[in-house]
Amino acid sequence: MKEYCGLFGIYGHPEAAQLTYLGLYALQHRGQESAGIVSKVGDELRCFKGMGLVADVFKAENIESLRSNMAIGHVRYSTTGSSILKNAQPLLVDYARGQVAIGHNGNLVNTGSIREKLEQTGSIFQTTTDSEVFIQLMARHNEGRLEDAIKYALSEVRGAYSLILMSETQMIGVRDPNGFRPLCIGVINNAYVLASETCALDLVGAEFFREVEPGEMVVIDEYGLRSVKYAQPNQKFCIFEYVYFARPDSNYMGENVHEVRKRFGMALAKEHPVDADLVIPVPDSGKSAALGYSASSGIPFDLAITRNHYIGRTFIQPTPFIRDFGVKIKLNPIKKVLKGKRVIVVDDSIVRGTTSKMRIRTIRDAGAKEIHMRISCPPHKYSCVYGIDFPSQKELIAANHSLEDIAQYLRVDSLGYLSVDGMLDSIGVDKTKFCTACFTGDYCVPFEEKGKYMTERRRK
Amino acid sequence: MKEYCGLFGIYGHPEAAQLTYLGLYALQHRGQESAGIVSKVGDELRCFKGMGLVADVFKAENIESLRSNMAIGHVRYSTTGSSILKNAQPLLVDYARGQVAIGHNGNLVNTGSIREKLEQTGSIFQTTTDSEVFIQLMARHNEGRLEDAIKYALSEVRGAYSLILMSETQMIGVRDPNGFRPLCIGVINNAYVLASETCALDLVGAEFFREVEPGEMVVIDEYGLRSVKYAQPNQKFCIFEYVYFARPDSNYMGENVHEVRKRFGMALAKEHPVDADLVIPVPDSGKSAALGYSASSGIPFDLAITRNHYIGRTFIQPTPFIRDFGVKIKLNPIKKVLKGKRVIVVDDSIVRGTTSKMRIRTIRDAGAKEIHMRISCPPHKYSCVYGIDFPSQKELIAANHSLEDIAQYLRVDSLGYLSVDGMLDSIGVDKTKFCTACFTGDYCVPFEEKGKYMTERRRK
Amino acid sequence: MKEYCGLFGIYGHPEAAQLTYLGLYALQHRGQESAGIVSKVGDELRCFKGMGLVADVFKAENIESLRSNMAIGHVRYSTTGSSILKNAQPLLVDYARGQVAIGHNGNLVNTGSIREKLEQTGSIFQTTTDSEVFIQLMARHNEGRLEDAIKYALSEVRGAYSLILMSETQMIGVRDPNGFRPLCIGVINNAYVLASETCALDLVGAEFFREVEPGEMVVIDEYGLRSVKYAQPNQKFCIFEYVYFARPDSNYMGENVHEVRKRFGMALAKEHPVDADLVIPVPDSGKSAALGYSASSGIPFDLAITRNHYIGRTFIQPTPFIRDFGVKIKLNPIKKVLKGKRVIVVDDSIVRGTTSKMRIRTIRDAGAKEIHMRISCPPHKYSCVYGIDFPSQKELIAANHSLEDIAQYLRVDSLGYLSVDGMLDSIGVDKTKFCTACFTGDYCVPFEEKGKYMTERRRK
Amino acid sequence: MKEYCGLFGIYGHPEAAQLTYLGLYALQHRGQESAGIVSKVGDELRCFKGMGLVADVFKAENIESLRSNMAIGHVRYSTTGSSILKNAQPLLVDYARGQVAIGHNGNLVNTGSIREKLEQTGSIFQTTTDSEVFIQLMARHNEGRLEDAIKYALSEVRGAYSLILMSETQMIGVRDPNGFRPLCIGVINNAYVLASETCALDLVGAEFFREVEPGEMVVIDEYGLRSVKYAQPNQKFCIFEYVYFARPDSNYMGENVHEVRKRFGMALAKEHPVDADLVIPVPDSGKSAALGYSASSGIPFDLAITRNHYIGRTFIQPTPFIRDFGVKIKLNPIKKVLKGKRVIVVDDSIVRGTTSKMRIRTIRDAGAKEIHMRISCPPHKYSCVYGIDFPSQKELIAANHSLEDIAQYLRVDSLGYLSVDGMLDSIGVDKTKFCTACFTGDYCVPFEEKGKYMTERRRK
Repeated sequence: MKEYCGLFGIYGHPEAAQLTYLGLYALQHRGQESAGIVSKVGDELRCFKGMGLVADVFKAENIESLRSNMAIGHVRYSTTGSSILKNAQPLLVDYARGQVAIGHNGNLVNTGSIREKLEQTGSIFQTTTDSEVFIQLMARHNEGRLEDAIKYALSEVRGAYSLILMSETQMIGVRDPNGFRPLCIGVINNAYVLASETCALDLVGAEFFREVEPGEMVVIDEYGLRSVKYAQPNQKFCIFEYVYFARPDSNYMGENVHEVRKRFGMALAKEHPVDADLVIPVPDSGKSAALGYSASSGIPFDLAITRNHYIGRTFIQPTPFIRDFGVKIKLNPIKKVLKGKRVIVVDDSIVRGTTSKMRIRTIRDAGAKEIHMRISCPPHKYSCVYGIDFPSQKELIAANHSLEDIAQYLRVDSLGYLSVDGMLDSIGVDKTKFCTACFTGDYCVPFEEKGKYMTERRRK
Repeated sequence: MKEYCGLFGIYGHPEAAQLTYLGLYALQHRGQESAGIVSKVGDELRCFKGMGLVADVFKAENIESLRSNMAIGHVRYSTTGSSILKNAQPLLVDYARGQVAIGHNGNLVNTGSIREKLEQTGSIFQTTTDSEVFIQLMARHNEGRLEDAIKYALSEVRGAYSLILMSETQMIGVRDPNGFRPLCIGVINNAYVLASETCALDLVGAEFFREVEPGEMVVIDEYGLRSVKYAQPNQKFCIFEYVYFARPDSNYMGENVHEVRKRFGMALAKEHPVDADLVIPVPDSGKSAALGYSASSGIPFDLAITRNHYIGRTFIQPTPFIRDFGVKIKLNPIKKVLKGKRVIVVDDSIVRGTTSKMRIRTIRDAGAKEIHMRISCPPHKYSCVYGIDFPSQKELIAANHSLEDIAQYLRVDSLGYLSVDGMLDSIGVDKTKFCTACFTGDYCVPFEEKGKYMTERRRK
Repeated sequence: MKEYCGLFGIYGHPEAAQLTYLGLYALQHRGQESAGIVSKVGDELRCFKGMGLVADVFKAENIESLRSNMAIGHVRYSTTGSSILKNAQPLLVDYARGQVAIGHNGNLVNTGSIREKLEQTGSIFQTTTDSEVFIQLMARHNEGRLEDAIKYALSEVRGAYSLILMSETQMIGVRDPNGFRPLCIGVINNAYVLASETCALDLVGAEFFREVEPGEMVVIDEYGLRSVKYAQPNQKFCIFEYVYFARPDSNYMGENVHEVRKRFGMALAKEHPVDADLVIPVPDSGKSAALGYSASSGIPFDLAITRNHYIGRTFIQPTPFIRDFGVKIKLNPIKKVLKGKRVIVVDDSIVRGTTSKMRIRTIRDAGAKEIHMRISCPPHKYSCVYGIDFPSQKELIAANHSLEDIAQYLRVDSLGYLSVDGMLDSIGVDKTKFCTACFTGDYCVPFEEKGKYMTERRRK
Repeated sequence: MKEYCGLFGIYGHPEAAQLTYLGLYALQHRGQESAGIVSKVGDELRCFKGMGLVADVFKAENIESLRSNMAIGHVRYSTTGSSILKNAQPLLVDYARGQVAIGHNGNLVNTGSIREKLEQTGSIFQTTTDSEVFIQLMARHNEGRLEDAIKYALSEVRGAYSLILMSETQMIGVRDPNGFRPLCIGVINNAYVLASETCALDLVGAEFFREVEPGEMVVIDEYGLRSVKYAQPNQKFCIFEYVYFARPDSNYMGENVHEVRKRFGMALAKEHPVDADLVIPVPDSGKSAALGYSASSGIPFDLAITRNHYIGRTFIQPTPFIRDFGVKIKLNPIKKVLKGKRVIVVDDSIVRGTTSKMRIRTIRDAGAKEIHMRISCPPHKYSCVYGIDFPSQKELIAANHSLEDIAQYLRVDSLGYLSVDGMLDSIGVDKTKFCTACFTGDYCVPFEEKGKYMTERRRK
């Protein structure tokens, strides 16, 4: 379960590239496939990007070579294959106005028809990213200012997007009219920062200023920050940012993610109470909700599963000998804590169900007498077309099975999901402001069928 | 604060090298500098070792090339410098009996005089490890069985040692008469396993059998496991294994580490109560004790500090711009949780005090109104000569400052350490069975001054 | 002194990617910066490329993943900077006709104005290569067949180019009307091969068929090879291919490069005879011509300078202590051969003169009594705008100094260059068919001043 | 066909480690498996070594960290397997006198019995090198000066050895009484240099002083260079140094290697004349002798085979499709030169015959009408026990086949080897001073059968 990206940008700070490196590092959980920074060095924009984690892609000399007072950066989600560096972002191009760079978080839903139209009139495409589609649109609009070209492109695209752009003189942030994906503004000394999450502001020492609003474009240049409302807002913020993606120390819409997750756990305890000895989280995804469940139910919280932090990409499974190896190598239940106990296991979601099933088995093997699974979000039944890489619907266990079936498959004594209303009520924000399509199937922006380019994205 | 090593060995299993790889992986927290495996392939012992983490040192083909039914492995603590592969273990040599390999955890305290004696009579040394001293002693004793040579060497050395040895036909585990360092025995199918911690048994699916006893040598070969009591036991188990080193899911002397740490926290709450709003752990070191403090005091537990798990070795500090960078890059306090709160911050120890000071500051910056620091072990005043790489005594803040001084230095509103008695009473094991020299200065085995070889160890 | 590239392609062979790998390997001397292969795998074109030598860029699994019966490849010249992978070729894009890949050898001289025109009408550029300009032009021509689009693009560009293109169904080779850069056709079983030099045909076991003619496009598909004459030919083959670039075992226009170079040496002996004891080549560049000089003059040939073949990229100069280090590390004169001798030193060219000066000094230090330098090409006075990366004119020693000045600078007893006529007469091909602009300044195709994009190419 | 090593050392120069790096680089042809340098930094000897080529093993910072005025270095021959870093040299140990380092070139023939004796009296062995045997012997002799310990060890060992040793205060060079392996002395400013070949002196700018004599030990320290004759000399210099190992620009016994090889070629022309059109060398091994053959016979010399210098370790054979791939990837015959010609192909030796057979075939395929093979050394019939890694006798084609058989196997029109007398007469040095055991089977130093340790050497 992976989201597309993390964005960071800073204008007007003498260590812009250095802070962008840190900002990307704080956003690493939003994308581990590739990382890139575009910085204005001398008179030109320069790009450095690579496959892998931020700390692996950039060496000290790379960062130093990007020294400037204006930079944007991007981290991208993980997949397989090494030949896809070309899809790493930001994308930096030459066009009629000079140079421009763009980083994108989200998913456009009408790029198929736009690409076709652009190609018919002479465009070539070197990547399969939405960013390239966007920038090709911009390049077709040579009159007026940069923001006019952006507005033109925005008028063509549909879907979920938070964008950061940079020209030789301006840094621009954009959020789609539904505000599906996050983007916030911070201030450090006299410099402006744009970031996907507030935790990136914290690391670089910036103060949170406000979120970029749905349908808003902010233009940052030597005259300061200017707001342009380019479309009627109708906020539909991705509820999964609260459930899963965001770091617990980030805030969205004024609410802290960890606190919201604790409230999810409290609501879950009210909706699905059960008599038990212990509340234990699946590390680390269930921690906040488990604290809430424990606080609400009065059942003691314990950290009964140990997580091995040394798991790396290169770890090999040297033997097929070991049952549930994939789970055990990461998580080890503490037998002395679990033995003979009735435990409530809290996690944030169930996707295919296979991993949960193995986890439950190791907890059972550790001696738990009863296992009650509690999930701090509703059953996950629909794919996302707005930028989250869920499996296809037929792989989602909740899309095709009843609660009883799932409980039996997982071999738990009981199973409870948080309700959609319970979830929305817990957040503390107007309930209409969220996209809950993955639970309800209610897609607020119509989308094209997956065509040539949607499938191609997977292929590469 | 680093310990010397983790040990693992297995005899009589067709995937001995594979399981040793996994066992070392589970023991990775005991040493990140180097990793090595010796396995009996065909008629000879073969060694593969390298600098770095287990998952980085071994590729699938290395493990495959070690396939056998008898193997031992070793992980070693982290330091700087790449030229010290020679000190990686296990050490494999040819000598009069054929081949023998050895892995060592702990620190011998009379190697200086032994090395001198050996060199005077013709020995050469290629490493600065205690293992080489031990094996040189063994090589001087060519009569009788392997275990006679080992007994001879044991009669010469003093200090802390858990050892695993392997010849072409036997695997042998040894624990010093004080049992400073851990070593346990597990069983899987008909194979015997030796490991520093029980968490390694869990990962490979072995059942815990018993600990190797202080002053005991266990000889494992085709006739099974045979116990040899080679010295009068006087157990002085390193209390710091409970406090800091061990994984929470390991058990020592029948007690689970996580549970013991929770009891440390409970005792701490009784010894140093304070009126506050929240109990928060320093991740991850203070988690277990904070749970205990919360349970005993009734003050709510919360995970108010987020840990960034992507920190790697290669991370660079690109700018001196950021205050308390070293702490912030790893840990971010959640402002919404801490703002205006009186918090009890629980950690397992304070060594130099510098890191704690920075952490306290970031918590204060996050808005905490009062900060009460609680440490789940006594003030750390003395160096360790039995294998733990504490800084020298003059760098230990508690060795040279009063409680008040420390509190002021850290800028906390109050500071409380667990008492030695409180700690010992919490474990649930006879209090006389522990070495508490780092707290009390009561060194139960006399040691040589640091001479030629002690300093050389640091020199590389 | 570097040329832009080597090209290789093969259509209709079950091991197309494998043979392309080998073909690029044989052409490695034409470009060490980057290497890439595009192959048709299943229904789509797939690209793998990277920075460095062919043998370093491709692992066995990369080649295997490109298995197909149709592939093209490219090697590119060496420069500094790691961020320029984007300029590696072949370039593979999506456009209105589907996918197309292109590799280019040479230099277009009017890309500045073309890029400007394209950008004004909506194109974006992601690289600074001529290949991208060419393919953008093609994308503007969506009617008719692929070859019509290519013809349109060819009608717009001016300069030096040999091209290999590949669509899902066709492989196409093109040579500019002047035939500046080489491109030949080979046959292996029933498959067609395109390659920059015949030595690549030899390695893959293909028979030489013929050269692609100036102004010719060859279209290879399931119907075989079809020739399209798209422009009036006026051959001006780059004479420097014979002088320097080509491997001695390659043939151009029916003449073997090694043999031609020997004839250069013979003519040189006639134009600049001198009484001496030995003819010695600068390894390896002067070998063929020195053989010719010796044969013609009757003065014995000897290999009096040893070349160290282990020089790699990573070699460091650990000390400024050593005079003429750069030369000595590669070449060591044999004192016993040179002592007291009058020697004729033969090399293929002098560019800046600095390296030659150092070489002469080491030969003098080795004891040579007289040193007569003979150069198997005319004085090099003009830059190349057709694809050879000579230094700028002001750095060319012959552009700014008399023969006497150069001889004095090099500290040779005499200096002789081959005359332009002597060179052209030696080849055995109609003298009008060559570009000799670097010697004569006679540029047969007019070129734009270096503008925005020409300088950008250097900027990276 | 590989020799064991290259040695270099320098005493009394402020850039000792830097020059040692260069010296090893010049000796790279003597060993590509591993490289190491021991330098005296501050009060202690420090070692840096690694697997691979000199330029790959040492980074600038490694060399810098070894800065000192006294260093020795070693390159070792190439083999397979990465786990044998432990056998890399120099070997640096602690023993009763302090620290000592040693590098060895050659092969001891009685190490089996010495190791057994040492092990029986308490020694352990961590490598399978002769160096460790030698240093263990030294460690048994603690009385007197360092040179007494060395003399004791020398009195025990038999075989071929050139040694460089270094203590905290002295650098010592030793050559066995037969002087099998080379070792020479150079002077640079006031510093002394020891090196396996004079080409290493040339690179660092040192003057050749003299060779270390057979049976001589030279002790270099603050008092200068002192000669110790420790045994009666009986020179038996390895003739294969002239034939194959040495770089052409090195001198032994006052004779230049390239010149000697040319004389081999002249003698070969006299012993085995044949009517032909061309003399061509196998690159690069046959070059010098082919020049001599041409000069003596009057038949023109030509470089008709092109060598590809980009061959690296990582090159893969991507397809079994190509006949004689292994030869063709390295060497390509020039058809235009060879077509219809009667050629004399000169090489320096034939070992198994398989490579020569393939080369002959590619020359035949290139159109040569007749091929006459001439080898500039006698038929190679016996293994070497003095340090050269020839294949076993049963793999040597000349050990088991007549000249006619070999010619037929190679498919040459005629075959001629240089005679032993012809070879010895060509050198210009007293004929009795050479070991020719590989041609004659006359082993001048008796040797032990390959026992435990001889076979073990291969095993690792």
